[in-house]
Amino acid sequence: MSGLPKYVEIHEEGPREGIQMEPPGISLADRVALIEGLAETGLKQIQLASFVNPVRVPQMADAAELFRSVRKRDGVRYTALWLNEKGFERAASVKEVDLEGALYFYASDAFSRMNNGVSAQAHTDTQRRWIDLYRQHGLSVDTAYIMTAFGCNFEGEIPMPRLREVLMRIKRILEDEGVRLGKLYLADTVGWANPLSVRERVGLLREIFPGVRVGLHLHDTRGTGMANALAALQEGVDLFDASVAGLGGCPFSGHAPHSVAGNICTEDLVFMCHEMGIRTDVDLDRLIETAQLAQRIIGRPLNGRVMHSGSLVAFRAQAAAPKQ
Amino acid sequence: MSGLPKYVEIHEEGPREGIQMEPPGISLADRVALIEGLAETGLKQIQLASFVNPVRVPQMADAAELFRSVRKRDGVRYTALWLNEKGFERAASVKEVDLEGALYFYASDAFSRMNNGVSAQAHTDTQRRWIDLYRQHGLSVDTAYIMTAFGCNFEGEIPMPRLREVLMRIKRILEDEGVRLGKLYLADTVGWANPLSVRERVGLLREIFPGVRVGLHLHDTRGTGMANALAALQEGVDLFDASVAGLGGCPFSGHAPHSVAGNICTEDLVFMCHEMGIRTDVDLDRLIETAQLAQRIIGRPLNGRVMHSGSLVAFRAQAAAPKQ
Repeated sequence: MSGLPKYVEIHEEGPREGIQMEPPGISLADRVALIEGLAETGLKQIQLASFVNPVRVPQMADAAELFRSVRKRDGVRYTALWLNEKGFERAASVKEVDLEGALYFYASDAFSRMNNGVSAQAHTDTQRRWIDLYRQHGLSVDTAYIMTAFGCNFEGEIPMPRLREVLMRIKRILEDEGVRLGKLYLADTVGWANPLSVRERVGLLREIFPGVRVGLHLHDTRGTGMANALAALQEGVDLFDASVAGLGGCPFSGHAPHSVAGNICTEDLVFMCHEMGIRTDVDLDRLIETAQLAQRIIGRPLNGRVMHSGSLVAFRAQAAAPKQ
Repeated sequence: MSGLPKYVEIHEEGPREGIQMEPPGISLADRVALIEGLAETGLKQIQLASFVNPVRVPQMADAAELFRSVRKRDGVRYTALWLNEKGFERAASVKEVDLEGALYFYASDAFSRMNNGVSAQAHTDTQRRWIDLYRQHGLSVDTAYIMTAFGCNFEGEIPMPRLREVLMRIKRILEDEGVRLGKLYLADTVGWANPLSVRERVGLLREIFPGVRVGLHLHDTRGTGMANALAALQEGVDLFDASVAGLGGCPFSGHAPHSVAGNICTEDLVFMCHEMGIRTDVDLDRLIETAQLAQRIIGRPLNGRVMHSGSLVAFRAQAAAPKQ
């Protein structure tokens, strides 16, 4: 495992992607407390909310108010998600949002139609307009996501030649537009990844986009989330999205393709990294307290593990203490 | 990942280790139904119960009756656990038990005192008597477990030199007694393992016991269970204990609540193996149904993931079906 990075950067998704999967009604004050708690742990980027259709996603209807309510901490970026230009314009009108020039591409056509109402290719073409829009707002276009990069419940596996085509199309668009990406994420949006497919797809991405930093957005839909993270770490990946307490993994959410399970759990990932000697600059015990806060807010036992069992820090200290 | 095995054997622990962690009162009929369901999935070894102090572990008080009530399936082994000679004698008096000449050693002294009332070394010495006892019953001594092989909440990390000593002591005893082990398990009894420690400890075990098949008994106490399983698979380990639906945990693990500290989840492990092209000879969809049965019996959402989201088999079939 010599390819392991020395440092891993983890971006927190819980307040946006986690809360979005919960039933509406979690108070603004609770979400503010959760976000302010997360910012105290050493996490450097937190996605607070999405600017999307409030009828479709009522949990995010007060996104602007949420951004305005959070007391910001220096050195932490407070980001947002949007799915179309209108959403971006709304986000851009809130000065508290740390805007990112992020592009979203879909490997699965069926998933793109469901999420965006247009084919993956048509959606890919819309990203040219996003690039213009970002530039009009003075943003550099630095980041791109490949959604459903592994597979999708409607379309099945995304075969490697298909992913290669998708990546090549993206590459042409970016070259046309003179965009130089800093980061490119593979997103396992609905839980189709396994450790081998993580390895092969990270490899493909690096082949087509040499020098671009690879990120992984993983879900623990089918229990392989942390194993997939390990496979990525072994390939030297040093950038992950994750959700505190594994938020979003609601066991009552049935088989709805959008809500089957949460992101990998932030504190479990931090724990695994630290145990393997990989720095995250996150205070694990403080993060565990924040996961417990998330659980009080949500009001049912959450999926995270180390939040229930405790980190090994206290046990080690106890064991090292002189015995009477 | 060229070291991956082609086939992995999984032993089911849920009915014993899982049920033991639940509050007493799960009916015999329910446990019988669960065990008979598990035996239909292709699993070849199921641990049904432990013969232990019924005052301390009331959930297992009817172990003998349970064994007599299960309709056995050809080709499946129905095993039991005991912690002392008296327990073994009780198990041996029940002809339905598939007795195994299994030895238990402890790497952690504190944990051994807690579990057995004697030091790890004193307990190690008792295993000579177990060997005699097994032989008196015509059993070959084939299997040994190293409990708390990674660490323990009372004692902290088990350093590698200490584990080496423990393994050397065991080796001497086995040589003295003329025992040739077939299988030797590293047990992460209370969740101290990480992918690197799995790799180094599997390596140490193979160095000291060349040719002995290595098994892993993993808990998902701190979220790294499946990543640890992946690390073991990458070292070629092809033998795992697991619990259906992630049932269970360890009663002496400090403050870990039983809802979170179970063994790694059988169907999630089967899923990961299959997705990586590793055979298990287990029918995953049938196992998922059995996990759902376990959940109905326990009466709360269980920790397994793929039991909630579904395997990819149905989604793949759907995606491959001709579209209208």
